[in-house]
Amino acid sequence: MDKFKTRHIGPNEHEIKEMLKGLGVGSLDELINETVPEKIRLKDKLNTGDALTEQELQKLFKEIAEKNKIYKSYIGCGYYGTYTPTVILRNIMESPGWYTQYTPYQAEISQGRLEALLNYQTMVIDLTGLPVANASLLDEGTAAAEAMHMLYAARKAEKKNANKFFVSDECFPQTIDVLKTRCEPIGVDLVIVDFKSLELTDDIFAILVQYPSDSGEIYDYTELFKKARQKGIYCVAAADILSLALLKAPVEIGADVAVGNTQRFGVPLGYGGPHAAYFACKDEFRRLIPGRIIGVSIDRHGNKAYRMALQTREQHIRREKATSNICTAQVLLAIMAGMFGVYHGPQGIKSIAERVHNLTVRLDNGLKQLGYNQLNKFYFDTLKIDTGSKIKLNDLRKKFENSRINLRYFDERYIGVSLDETATESDVDELLKIFGEGKSVSSSLNGSELADSLKRKSKFMLHPVFNTYRSETEMLRYMKKLENKDLSLNMSMIPLGSCTMKLNATTEMIPVSWQEFGSLHPFIPLEQAQGYQEIFKGLEETLSRITGLPSVSLQPNSGAQGEYTGLMVIRAFHKSQEEGHRNVVIIPASAHGTNPASAVMAGMKVVVVKTMEHGDIDVDDLRAKAEQHKENLAALMITYPSTHGVFEEKIIEICGIIHKNGGQVYMDGANLNAQVGLTNPAIIGADVCHINLHKTFCIPHGGGGPGMGPIAVAKHLAPFLPGHPLFKAGGDKAITAVSSAPWGSSSILLISYAYILMMGSDGLTDATKAAILNANYIASRLKDYYPVLYAGKNNRVAHELIFDTRGFKKSGIEVEDIAKRLMDYGFHAPTVSFPVPGTLMVEPTESESKYELDRFCDAMISIRNEIKEIEEGKADKSDNVLKNAPHTAYEIASDDWKHGYSREKAAYPVAGLKDNKFWPPVARVDNAYGDRNFVCACEPVSSYEEVESS
Amino acid sequence: MDKFKTRHIGPNEHEIKEMLKGLGVGSLDELINETVPEKIRLKDKLNTGDALTEQELQKLFKEIAEKNKIYKSYIGCGYYGTYTPTVILRNIMESPGWYTQYTPYQAEISQGRLEALLNYQTMVIDLTGLPVANASLLDEGTAAAEAMHMLYAARKAEKKNANKFFVSDECFPQTIDVLKTRCEPIGVDLVIVDFKSLELTDDIFAILVQYPSDSGEIYDYTELFKKARQKGIYCVAAADILSLALLKAPVEIGADVAVGNTQRFGVPLGYGGPHAAYFACKDEFRRLIPGRIIGVSIDRHGNKAYRMALQTREQHIRREKATSNICTAQVLLAIMAGMFGVYHGPQGIKSIAERVHNLTVRLDNGLKQLGYNQLNKFYFDTLKIDTGSKIKLNDLRKKFENSRINLRYFDERYIGVSLDETATESDVDELLKIFGEGKSVSSSLNGSELADSLKRKSKFMLHPVFNTYRSETEMLRYMKKLENKDLSLNMSMIPLGSCTMKLNATTEMIPVSWQEFGSLHPFIPLEQAQGYQEIFKGLEETLSRITGLPSVSLQPNSGAQGEYTGLMVIRAFHKSQEEGHRNVVIIPASAHGTNPASAVMAGMKVVVVKTMEHGDIDVDDLRAKAEQHKENLAALMITYPSTHGVFEEKIIEICGIIHKNGGQVYMDGANLNAQVGLTNPAIIGADVCHINLHKTFCIPHGGGGPGMGPIAVAKHLAPFLPGHPLFKAGGDKAITAVSSAPWGSSSILLISYAYILMMGSDGLTDATKAAILNANYIASRLKDYYPVLYAGKNNRVAHELIFDTRGFKKSGIEVEDIAKRLMDYGFHAPTVSFPVPGTLMVEPTESESKYELDRFCDAMISIRNEIKEIEEGKADKSDNVLKNAPHTAYEIASDDWKHGYSREKAAYPVAGLKDNKFWPPVARVDNAYGDRNFVCACEPVSSYEEVESS
Repeated sequence: MDKFKTRHIGPNEHEIKEMLKGLGVGSLDELINETVPEKIRLKDKLNTGDALTEQELQKLFKEIAEKNKIYKSYIGCGYYGTYTPTVILRNIMESPGWYTQYTPYQAEISQGRLEALLNYQTMVIDLTGLPVANASLLDEGTAAAEAMHMLYAARKAEKKNANKFFVSDECFPQTIDVLKTRCEPIGVDLVIVDFKSLELTDDIFAILVQYPSDSGEIYDYTELFKKARQKGIYCVAAADILSLALLKAPVEIGADVAVGNTQRFGVPLGYGGPHAAYFACKDEFRRLIPGRIIGVSIDRHGNKAYRMALQTREQHIRREKATSNICTAQVLLAIMAGMFGVYHGPQGIKSIAERVHNLTVRLDNGLKQLGYNQLNKFYFDTLKIDTGSKIKLNDLRKKFENSRINLRYFDERYIGVSLDETATESDVDELLKIFGEGKSVSSSLNGSELADSLKRKSKFMLHPVFNTYRSETEMLRYMKKLENKDLSLNMSMIPLGSCTMKLNATTEMIPVSWQEFGSLHPFIPLEQAQGYQEIFKGLEETLSRITGLPSVSLQPNSGAQGEYTGLMVIRAFHKSQEEGHRNVVIIPASAHGTNPASAVMAGMKVVVVKTMEHGDIDVDDLRAKAEQHKENLAALMITYPSTHGVFEEKIIEICGIIHKNGGQVYMDGANLNAQVGLTNPAIIGADVCHINLHKTFCIPHGGGGPGMGPIAVAKHLAPFLPGHPLFKAGGDKAITAVSSAPWGSSSILLISYAYILMMGSDGLTDATKAAILNANYIASRLKDYYPVLYAGKNNRVAHELIFDTRGFKKSGIEVEDIAKRLMDYGFHAPTVSFPVPGTLMVEPTESESKYELDRFCDAMISIRNEIKEIEEGKADKSDNVLKNAPHTAYEIASDDWKHGYSREKAAYPVAGLKDNKFWPPVARVDNAYGDRNFVCACEPVSSYEEVESS
Repeated sequence: MDKFKTRHIGPNEHEIKEMLKGLGVGSLDELINETVPEKIRLKDKLNTGDALTEQELQKLFKEIAEKNKIYKSYIGCGYYGTYTPTVILRNIMESPGWYTQYTPYQAEISQGRLEALLNYQTMVIDLTGLPVANASLLDEGTAAAEAMHMLYAARKAEKKNANKFFVSDECFPQTIDVLKTRCEPIGVDLVIVDFKSLELTDDIFAILVQYPSDSGEIYDYTELFKKARQKGIYCVAAADILSLALLKAPVEIGADVAVGNTQRFGVPLGYGGPHAAYFACKDEFRRLIPGRIIGVSIDRHGNKAYRMALQTREQHIRREKATSNICTAQVLLAIMAGMFGVYHGPQGIKSIAERVHNLTVRLDNGLKQLGYNQLNKFYFDTLKIDTGSKIKLNDLRKKFENSRINLRYFDERYIGVSLDETATESDVDELLKIFGEGKSVSSSLNGSELADSLKRKSKFMLHPVFNTYRSETEMLRYMKKLENKDLSLNMSMIPLGSCTMKLNATTEMIPVSWQEFGSLHPFIPLEQAQGYQEIFKGLEETLSRITGLPSVSLQPNSGAQGEYTGLMVIRAFHKSQEEGHRNVVIIPASAHGTNPASAVMAGMKVVVVKTMEHGDIDVDDLRAKAEQHKENLAALMITYPSTHGVFEEKIIEICGIIHKNGGQVYMDGANLNAQVGLTNPAIIGADVCHINLHKTFCIPHGGGGPGMGPIAVAKHLAPFLPGHPLFKAGGDKAITAVSSAPWGSSSILLISYAYILMMGSDGLTDATKAAILNANYIASRLKDYYPVLYAGKNNRVAHELIFDTRGFKKSGIEVEDIAKRLMDYGFHAPTVSFPVPGTLMVEPTESESKYELDRFCDAMISIRNEIKEIEEGKADKSDNVLKNAPHTAYEIASDDWKHGYSREKAAYPVAGLKDNKFWPPVARVDNAYGDRNFVCACEPVSSYEEVESS
């Protein structure tokens, strides 16, 4: 049978031989021996099992899927049934043209998704009434925490000592739990009380309420917010996005910030995710808003062009401003939610909201006829019923479960029922029938109107984009137009260093669309989700084998979340050892920017350790700093192989120094793709590592999310793995939740598990070898054109490498010019200026074939020759193919060609383009709005150093 | 809830009002009253039921799907389990970028699918060894019939009187049945005997054998073919495509023609289809080969460009050469099969074949150990077991069915077992366990080698395309590259007159991929296909209501097949009335070219009736001819509304004349989209009509297939609807089969049924009205620029219209120049030169919005102005934007721009293109190979007239 690994790994046997020849080594193992230090190599072969074929995997997953039971769920609590319009399902969620895209850092070849995200932001802005929205956050709980964090940083002078954050006890329980996690380490005092009894004392800096509340009651917070404002207290509304079609917008009740989940806008439940949380705020917070904002700008020719408005990244620049470690979004899901808005338009959204509300009214009326005590006076979609006794509740619960219906069961005697877009009149009748226990009622729409003071009168979504594409044909063409503006993995390689843009195989992706995985509410009883639990168990176990660390938490739903969780687990461990004072985290200068940000959020102080001339960590400096801070040393955060693309030889020594000084070793999993099957974090000396499933384990990048960042930990840390307020999850001494859903973005875990099963131990190991081979092949082909900045002992690079392009500056050529010129050749640029400003970091991954590597190298060589022409004065210093790149078709066709070089040279510099040319839809985007570091990960760590050394 | 019809129909209420205003009518009904003659309007509203929402439809189809039982089927007989590589499934079969494409008549914007089809042809040529292959036929049975027909036409002088076609009794039963149908009307005597006892008499013109045979035995036909050749007898091998990886190629055993199904190359079974049948032959038949051949040519700049080699259409030119009415292919399926070849390559295909064969050997050895009498000496994948008695057979059958296994049960005591790509060792063990009835055996691979004389030694699929794209990443990019070369419905409207390129809604498409529909073998017991049977029943009933004709056959798997079937049913009816001599078919000059071809195939003589100046049928001429031929009049074939895009007022009178003279009225369903809900064939007077489900009922065109052409008939014709040798299908006096599968291409019937259910009666009627509105809107916007050739009584057109562009000839502008220039504007041309040479026929369908109609009209107006520049001498007569269209990006970027107009004028003639430009990948294709009529349907009927009048 066909082996999946031969489909996943780019170079075939024949090509591998050829490539090895070029490298001057006799075998792949010889190359690996030259590259990966002997002392960290695995003693025993990786054992994650034998490979399944693609057909066997599909069969297995079908069987597992059938273990998930599809009940009707009226649980609510932030998650709701929805219909994904099939045209969006097939043409976005299931389309590699969308899901294989990378984060839109290279704006010129990302105009499609940038526009789609701008639509999403516009929709959020319109529905909340707040003037600024970001391109999404991970989930509602973390969005609330981000709001808290942002507002804490935004305290005005007179509030500088206020450290209390009030959260209504009628917020969703998972939101409150995430807030607990996030408040404590930064010294914020979380006050959880009934908002009606809240005293607005001076030590409160902000308040958060749920709108409508957790119980379903719609409170009018206008007075509360007004009073708070008078006291200089910021106000946050966690608002249901669909309800806002009928209810006053957050801005209209006085909110400064609104957050919430957009899942119910067409995104499958997926047993908890991935979904996109929205975040909107007043303009005064624009420069503090977490995550990414898409902005409108112009290109070199003055044409409209979208881009990420990078001012958001400034938050990282000074440590005291580091209010977030967020460097991702849930782009694919935000795009789906935005397209849901485009598809339905304001009338459609409103009519869905009205239908849901009216069905709820019917249910309420029926319940009243049946004599039930329904507690909510004003509600949108959720009722709370006092059954009178726990016995009655349990009795009803049994009946509902026998009818395959899930309701929400509160403590004691209360039942919650939330209706959603998928509910019908017959669903309401069915509910009433069971509630009625034999008695029949005729539900009606009379009564229970919303109070006029709660009703929305303002219009929303008036922009033409929400009022044009109503037919499926138009919708399809609009999405296709946007897709075609973007360069995706289905067109050419995306050789981004540190991002591991490998194949997202179709067989891995297919089960994500299955109803048995897509339609499960995250808070259903565990026995209905046995299929998912089996996936979790299998994935945890295999990840554990791959990392060598025995326990895994699948809760963190991004890499940065994983970092944060890892540090919080370390923190809890130190506390348990009565060493709660340990709060210093050592971070090498070459680390990903998220590392220090996460540390700050976990209440840690960052100490930066130097990098030596040749790129390795300065072990002497490390030892000195470890010893200097030994009393308070909490952890080292380290990436391996290093972000310089090198397997540092001294890694075991480094970890030993940390351990000796009482610290724990946190390994950033960004480069795990160079380890799998050859070494592992445990052997190297890590106590914790996070695993970017969207890098090493094939979850597609989705244009900038979703990702997943589970962590694996050593035995002594296992008790502290994060829990969840509604489920037994994590360790015995679990820290509170880091994500809203107990197992993060559950549905995409299928992808990683499928990959692991189909590759088998051998395949996974072969992939690592091929990734290293591919990087070294590029190094060898390009080293005479671009100096390779760092290499290991035998002059080998790991799975990625840095080309030094700083030497061209004297000819006026910046690294960005090369990045943009690559677009004219049909390529996405490598990572620019990370971790070293002025350089290009290339990571080909194992999935690229020799053919594609050669195509890329040929382009790079051709560009080098174009630079040479400038160096030699044959091309103009300012008017040349690099400076003016990328060239659009419209410019090429222009009658008014003003350049000193020819159109053909601009657009068709190599022959292959004639058969397959991708045209950037806009020319170079004007970056006057200011981006200083254009990198794959968050801000480089160097910006933190000043604080440490001060 | 969202109504599907608002998604399917392009113009919304507001736009409809605006458009009506432009037309000067007060309401849509007013327009319809002006357009559709009063006397043919429905008295009662159409009643196909109320509309389902998309969600309700999905739920219903899930329930229906579950009624299909998925057993393991080892039935064989031309259909085999296969794995569709998921990357092909998702990115071709499920991608609107591929399935919404039209037949590649406009070669310049069809290079992607042309290349894909060329791959397919190359694969067939390599595997059969024969030098010419077409781009696929409908199924193996009709492919065999086409071979018979072609060779009958190709008889050499010395064989002119030979009229016997020999078919081995070991051919598949459905193939033999289709041959029966096709031989008799044209006077070919079908001889069905054991090939070993065949005497090669002089009256035999060709022979057909199955390779390997129906029973699974691989006979060596070399001697037979050699002897036949010596006698001037042509030899056809119906060969299993997968077996050819191991067995001598047809050419190596002396075949002149090879046919077969390519389904097992990755195309789902789908309970009978759609699949692509291959047809390959010696070079001497090149100009007689049925269907389409893709050929390589060059474009205006001398670059390689693919095109349909139109010499194949010459078969229609003279009636005595009309050996086929085939004007379609199974493009999407042929592309999938070809991509299966690209994905697996020769080694992969060979290794699949070897695996299947080896498993069969294992099974054979096990059966022998168990004491079974396995009859096949040499076999590929199929064994035939003599169970000894009927009792034993029935006993085994029960056991297998209890284990959810289907085998093939021959008459009496024989069992067939065919293994396929999906079979595993454990499947073989399971089979042996049941055969063993308790006894266990150890199956082994020893023995039962193929005879050396049967083994293939020649290589195949050496072309790089089959040896390059082995990784999924490369495969994905290759397919994407091809997709991006083609203009599809997901980019812009495809306003082809007579082709009804409407929305293929995603919700209609999704169920086709479900395993419960995809994995069923067509010859399983009916009780396992109750879901399908429910679909058939529902579709038959609704089609019956739509047409007003009470009985429906779903067997014909293309429009032309439907025509042929309809005529054969009429023929059988006449025979039953003892009027078997009736053999004259009257066909208006404006009819689709398939009409006369079908008539000839059904053994009829064609009489052409004239068209009057204003486009309508000349009723006097019709009456005269009907009366002249009244003794022999069999039928009238007529399209309504006419192919001139007009609701002819005299249609009822016309039908009356035919009936009065003893004929039946056959209505071509091409224009049914203008009838649904407003009128119907029964009211108009038809006794039979075929229904192009791929036009009116949303089956996507798939780049030139699949289609479906069921027929609906009046009560007196119902007994003759086609049957099937293996199933009770059709009427009591059923004619023999017209397709290999009893219900044609079953899986795509889901699409049409979903459409009918989601639209509901109202929606279907509204769609018809909108289609008429859209056509009249275009007429009104463009009439001052291009004369509308024909219109009805109130100067209204039906659902399509013809623009007369012959007036531009004097300025040197041909209709083709306009068609090609439209590509520069991002549009697919309307139908060119059909039914009137030198004109454009435009059919917008109801799915196009006003926005898109305006965009098209703007382009047409802009082109008219470009023509005016030539007329006024402002532009050069030979060097202008029309003559040089389409312009490629490469030409635009060329340093050497030689034209008298600017690049911008060439490429960006209207502003909207800046945001959304589709670049034709090649310039105008060199048509020196000769195409005379470049039309949407087959050859225009006028070429037949000479024969009639002679």
